Amino acid sequence: MKILLIINLFKKYNLFINKKIYIFGWIKNIRYSKNYIFIEINDGSCIKNIQILYLKNKNINYIKNINIGYSIFIFGKVIISKNINKQKIEILLINFKIIGNIENQKKYPISSSKYNKIEFIRKFFHLRPRSKFFGVISRIRNFIYIEINNFLNKNNFIWVQTPIITSVDTENSGNSFKVSSLDIYNNNNKKELDFFKKESFLTVSGQLNLESYALSMSKVYSFGPVFRADNSNTKKHLSEFWMLELEVAFRNIKYIIKFTIYLIKKIFHKLLNKLYDDVYYISKYNNYDINKVYNDLNKEFITLEYYEVVNILKKKFNIKCENDITTKYENILLKYFNCPIIIKNFPKSIKPFYMKLNKNNLTVSSFDIIFPNVGEIVGGSEREYRKNLIIDSIKNNNMNINLYKWYIDLRKYGTVAHSGMGIGFERLLMYFTGIKNIKDIIPFPRYPNNLHM
Amino acid sequence: MKILLIINLFKKYNLFINKKIYIFGWIKNIRYSKNYIFIEINDGSCIKNIQILYLKNKNINYIKNINIGYSIFIFGKVIISKNINKQKIEILLINFKIIGNIENQKKYPISSSKYNKIEFIRKFFHLRPRSKFFGVISRIRNFIYIEINNFLNKNNFIWVQTPIITSVDTENSGNSFKVSSLDIYNNNNKKELDFFKKESFLTVSGQLNLESYALSMSKVYSFGPVFRADNSNTKKHLSEFWMLELEVAFRNIKYIIKFTIYLIKKIFHKLLNKLYDDVYYISKYNNYDINKVYNDLNKEFITLEYYEVVNILKKKFNIKCENDITTKYENILLKYFNCPIIIKNFPKSIKPFYMKLNKNNLTVSSFDIIFPNVGEIVGGSEREYRKNLIIDSIKNNNMNINLYKWYIDLRKYGTVAHSGMGIGFERLLMYFTGIKNIKDIIPFPRYPNNLHM
Repeated sequence: MKILLIINLFKKYNLFINKKIYIFGWIKNIRYSKNYIFIEINDGSCIKNIQILYLKNKNINYIKNINIGYSIFIFGKVIISKNINKQKIEILLINFKIIGNIENQKKYPISSSKYNKIEFIRKFFHLRPRSKFFGVISRIRNFIYIEINNFLNKNNFIWVQTPIITSVDTENSGNSFKVSSLDIYNNNNKKELDFFKKESFLTVSGQLNLESYALSMSKVYSFGPVFRADNSNTKKHLSEFWMLELEVAFRNIKYIIKFTIYLIKKIFHKLLNKLYDDVYYISKYNNYDINKVYNDLNKEFITLEYYEVVNILKKKFNIKCENDITTKYENILLKYFNCPIIIKNFPKSIKPFYMKLNKNNLTVSSFDIIFPNVGEIVGGSEREYRKNLIIDSIKNNNMNINLYKWYIDLRKYGTVAHSGMGIGFERLLMYFTGIKNIKDIIPFPRYPNNLHM
Repeated sequence: MKILLIINLFKKYNLFINKKIYIFGWIKNIRYSKNYIFIEINDGSCIKNIQILYLKNKNINYIKNINIGYSIFIFGKVIISKNINKQKIEILLINFKIIGNIENQKKYPISSSKYNKIEFIRKFFHLRPRSKFFGVISRIRNFIYIEINNFLNKNNFIWVQTPIITSVDTENSGNSFKVSSLDIYNNNNKKELDFFKKESFLTVSGQLNLESYALSMSKVYSFGPVFRADNSNTKKHLSEFWMLELEVAFRNIKYIIKFTIYLIKKIFHKLLNKLYDDVYYISKYNNYDINKVYNDLNKEFITLEYYEVVNILKKKFNIKCENDITTKYENILLKYFNCPIIIKNFPKSIKPFYMKLNKNNLTVSSFDIIFPNVGEIVGGSEREYRKNLIIDSIKNNNMNINLYKWYIDLRKYGTVAHSGMGIGFERLLMYFTGIKNIKDIIPFPRYPNNLHM
């Protein structure tokens, strides 16, 4: 018995007309007319449900036992739909079998009455992909993941799997999770007894490891989860989120910025081409203007030097910004310009140790890109590839130089200028879809005090 | 200035003949003849070096300053090689610039004399990708990663990002790493003060989470790191390794086994087609017969019931195997049959709680596939989808049922039969390449007492 996925039925529907097929899925809707019962089935393979037609003169009692959420097995004949504007084909039921029912319809969070209430179903992480909203997100997330990998592969990037458990604190930020094989609450723990016999963290970035591969493979990337033990429960932060990070040998910041924008634009175009129905649904749900995203990505981005941003904030908004451009300031700038903004050359004092010092000795060759509705999605820089300067920087940042011996080695042996950047995957998806809460865009969000499943 | 990658130069070499080009890379070899100096350059994009020809009548003193490992920038003219059997093209040097030298050639682990000594350079994790051996591994690893994602995508699987930090102990094995935001060695730790206010682990498998998506998206997979805090330092174990896991709704074990073999075979064929030079080099290095791998994958695998394996071990080898088929027994079977072996229907007592109970009430609908030279690479099963039986199983395994309420929910609401499997990514790569030590096949291996970078 060959089971057909609904996406394949729709894609090649003309091959199946008047043919008998097997499908299975979950009941999404049931409607009753005078002569027919209409059952809508979805198997997750695409946004569209397939409509099953059931002639009422059959055993009506039996079919009355079905309900939304049931898993069902369908044997039927594909016919051209009478309501051709709504769907091209439907299935005339020959036989069916209920596989799994809903034990208690009242307790089922994805029941018909609650079906579209995202606020309610959001926290049922094990059931929420059954809703149209989270089904759409799953397909979009999968699509972008595949496309990013393929785009980079076509551009000769080599994927390098940077480790999750690490002894390196890349950002030197002190907000890393610790990893241990000991019983944490046992209160008798000694480092010497721990698994790695040293302090072990969950990675905050794979960049430094990635650099070691860039200096032999030229173009490399990593794409995976990174972690922050920040106690901040906002709509834009997760404790475990995904980052695309890439490093390119012998390239400067100009190349990286250009390539990053090209990547984001290409991926968005592909998304529109291939998953239009999903994107349309989600943007409409979020009351989000994807035409504007399209137009913004086709225009040249506004590029500002850090000091220009400081001047604008001062002159236009009477804001004295002396340090980092916080979310608050980002929002002001985004409201003012209403398009993506590249900010370049931050003061070295507010950026990590590995960024390349500019000739002025004050700023580093760095950039952030901030986007409407989301804020910062991209951050990157040229890396300091000169041995003496990287040693100075490690010392000036009060970091333990013994931990970075290998990193200095990279500057001792065949060093080259190189640059890289990181994209927050979930935030990129928020920009593409208009999703307002980052917890909705990842299957199993982790945030303070919350660890479901 | 357009820098050309060496892979693109070789791919489209006829476009570049007599053209002037820029390339950059690292010096892999230098040879001197009467009239010429031959410099071999590699940029990591492919296994082949490009040969640079330098006429000795030029400034010979300056070029004498170069050495293996230097990063170098080349401007030259592409010419047809005189030694066409060795390489089709080479580059006649016009100009060059040393970017980074080797500070102390004696201390550089990848110098020419040590170049091929894998045993020596293996532990220089930040420098080893510069060797041919680890460069090859990086490209093969990247290739298989991309191909697996694309293969599954074409087969309508949806990638689901299962979480790294989890509260679920899938295998109930008690060898999980713990995660905490507290200072582990501070010895004054309380659960209530920890980040998630509950015990948090590094995932050992994304399967249970994945099941929640299979029961709405039908075909799903995850592909990422999993963790074991086992204190075993063998050539086949890592503390952090990669797993491909997939779950398919409405499919039985027969389908999963067939699909798994199809996947492995397809990916291996693609690898041979696309990266033949790399595969040839690495298999030769490892004295490994990839023709045998090819033939084994083209034959039907031997399939044995668990009880048959027990009988064979008893009758042929006088071994009394009463529990799990250990590595030792695997090796005996593999030596005896000399091909991949599928072992089916293990006793329920030695398998995890989630596997579907067979009608005999003694075994579960499960399978392992063991492969020559590596041992177990694949494990899978039908999942117990009947609510009462999964509750029994959780209880019988002395697991905390409160942690699995959501898992039971999946069986309460629209449950369907479903099956899944996991492939150890590194072990699959070992099977494809003949690499004997799993620590060589992952960029940054983690194992007891060892956490570099």
